[in-house]
Amino acid sequence: MKQTILRQYARLIARAGVNIQKGQDVIINCDLDQPKFVELLVDECYKAGARKVTVEFSYQPLEKLHVRHQSVAAMARVEEWQKARLQHYVDTLPCRIYLVSEDPDGLKGINQKKVASARRKSYPVIKPYRDRMENKYQWCIAAVPGVAWAKKLFPGLPRGKAVEKLWEAILFTSRVTDDPVAAWEAHNRDLQGRCDYLNGLGIAQLRYRGDNGTDLTVGMIPEALFKGGGDTSLQGVFYNPNIPTEECFTSPMRGQAEGIVYATKPLSYRGQLIENFSIRFEGGKAVEVRAEKNQPLLEQMIAMDEGAAYLGECALVPVNSPISESGLLFYETLFDENAACHLALGMGFADTIRDYENKTLEECRAMGINDSMNHVDFMIGYEGLDIDAVTRDGRTVPIFRRGRWAF
Amino acid sequence: MKQTILRQYARLIARAGVNIQKGQDVIINCDLDQPKFVELLVDECYKAGARKVTVEFSYQPLEKLHVRHQSVAAMARVEEWQKARLQHYVDTLPCRIYLVSEDPDGLKGINQKKVASARRKSYPVIKPYRDRMENKYQWCIAAVPGVAWAKKLFPGLPRGKAVEKLWEAILFTSRVTDDPVAAWEAHNRDLQGRCDYLNGLGIAQLRYRGDNGTDLTVGMIPEALFKGGGDTSLQGVFYNPNIPTEECFTSPMRGQAEGIVYATKPLSYRGQLIENFSIRFEGGKAVEVRAEKNQPLLEQMIAMDEGAAYLGECALVPVNSPISESGLLFYETLFDENAACHLALGMGFADTIRDYENKTLEECRAMGINDSMNHVDFMIGYEGLDIDAVTRDGRTVPIFRRGRWAF
Repeated sequence: MKQTILRQYARLIARAGVNIQKGQDVIINCDLDQPKFVELLVDECYKAGARKVTVEFSYQPLEKLHVRHQSVAAMARVEEWQKARLQHYVDTLPCRIYLVSEDPDGLKGINQKKVASARRKSYPVIKPYRDRMENKYQWCIAAVPGVAWAKKLFPGLPRGKAVEKLWEAILFTSRVTDDPVAAWEAHNRDLQGRCDYLNGLGIAQLRYRGDNGTDLTVGMIPEALFKGGGDTSLQGVFYNPNIPTEECFTSPMRGQAEGIVYATKPLSYRGQLIENFSIRFEGGKAVEVRAEKNQPLLEQMIAMDEGAAYLGECALVPVNSPISESGLLFYETLFDENAACHLALGMGFADTIRDYENKTLEECRAMGINDSMNHVDFMIGYEGLDIDAVTRDGRTVPIFRRGRWAF
Repeated sequence: MKQTILRQYARLIARAGVNIQKGQDVIINCDLDQPKFVELLVDECYKAGARKVTVEFSYQPLEKLHVRHQSVAAMARVEEWQKARLQHYVDTLPCRIYLVSEDPDGLKGINQKKVASARRKSYPVIKPYRDRMENKYQWCIAAVPGVAWAKKLFPGLPRGKAVEKLWEAILFTSRVTDDPVAAWEAHNRDLQGRCDYLNGLGIAQLRYRGDNGTDLTVGMIPEALFKGGGDTSLQGVFYNPNIPTEECFTSPMRGQAEGIVYATKPLSYRGQLIENFSIRFEGGKAVEVRAEKNQPLLEQMIAMDEGAAYLGECALVPVNSPISESGLLFYETLFDENAACHLALGMGFADTIRDYENKTLEECRAMGINDSMNHVDFMIGYEGLDIDAVTRDGRTVPIFRRGRWAF
């Protein structure tokens, strides 16, 4: 891949992505797959004004060893210095960049019960810090190709060629052109226009229907907005949390979901694929799941905590998005969620509430925003999906027809 | 490189190297060069009984960017959470494994004055924690090949071949045989025998003379011992801090060094090579340095702090050690110091003092152990070096003749 386009991509992440403010710290989390790109990214972060850039490398195979050999107590323990670090983040609000590149099957065979058990133990310690940071700092998830991931997408190609193809796919779907920052401004305007229309309708319910069996009605929170593209932190800084992104999304009313929904793509969860599954909701709660592959993992997922069985997000994405048109299944939520309409089980987004800046997290949750340690997207969109909005004044307005925007 | 021998090497580091005690934590510092080996090492650490193994990856090119773009204040700042982490290490005494693999020229062009200035600022904050940990935990420095390092040693070979050759050299000189743990036990017995002889002599001074101009007399501390091979922590755990190691070393009397010494190998300091240099001592202090290459860096090195111009170590290594016999210049102190006699400028080793377990660090320093934030080895041994011991009872005993042990 040419250095110039990679530098454009690095700049896109540093500028349009996290929009680093002069003197702000930046933390980059990544695997070992593309150190040369990480070098470009660190350079661009400094050029955008970062005071200090810290790169936290991780290596997926080590994760398996840690889970195999550590006790749950050791995995779950949050040391005092780690709490002090979280407090430091609360105080200084660094930008966070997450570069995903891992093998979608890389954690196959891991003891998920142990992982979940450790996470349940550590989460209450971490949560207060997370809550105090929520919506206050800029963050961005973007992708770089790892070899195993590239081989999963292009199994017929040699390693180098597969990585090259995945780079092309990432850069194309992420709108990395000659002037990607300008391309993202235009894209953001388009998404914002659609959100404005949706927010003007006064939607009470979304009704999903498909010839694959999907028949689901989800209640909306009157105070919640549809959002898309970039976001503005409570500090007033505009940033793009996902590169790429194609969705208009909102957080639905906890407790209001009835019916059944069929997934249209595999779900990569904790390094394993859950395939061909359906979820039935009653009173907002997932009460029954069926999966051809990895059903126990799906059951575990919705049992992580009280909120893990409730919806946290409804997202609208037409089947003619660039990602969808690329024809690729990425086995990576960042991309696959932008190829099709999806729902998420688990945590909702408090910042979808109108005027959330002047509300506490607790007030947002009282309005119907779900709370959970999980937030897992799964795809339900396809060429056969229709969506109607039932408005609070009793109208039925078509939102999607045959997988595409109906307005 | 065959997986079985690499696993032997990983086991050697985990067992003979840091000798992990059941339930102890381990921290591994390494670059991105050999993740597959790091995976083996982490596995072996757990199998040796580690509670939790943490790998801290770094990537040398990022170091250059940090120095270029950060202010000295940002570089020097030690955050509260970092102090809390140091305190955690003081409290829990994890094993530390350092895997070296970096490009010996990798930090060329870096602003050394800025690095030194930041280090001088942060050191007083870090030092109290370091002092409280000193000699209390097991640590081990070992090597794995990085591409740039391998190409430096074998410039004529393609990358893969060069890395393979460097693996061979590392494993050969590190005595990684079918049963490396047993080989290290035998090697330790040999080194211990030589140390016992030296410690029985009652040495007052070491006199170095060579036909290259070297003519240096260094005073010994009466309470200091020669040590070699493995070491025993204050917690009573035997470990091997260097793999490989061939030296018998001691810490000399601060303030007693007269004459001039000529380096016989280049010195790699902060990612740059200082070449063909000499150092003249008066009253124990380096008062004049001359170098054909990178003289300013050498001057900066001895000016880091008060103790940086005084000797901290005298080490005896014959020219027929396996590393010397490999005929390779490794451009890496871990190896090159084991190919020849050397001295170190900077910090001395308090644990060379007899009964140091029952003494404070301050008491050891009052006896003549030098203190500095630096500790930099430089090679002075070669085929032409003679060393005599002048004993406290007035005898002159030959220690080295023509670069080899004289006993």
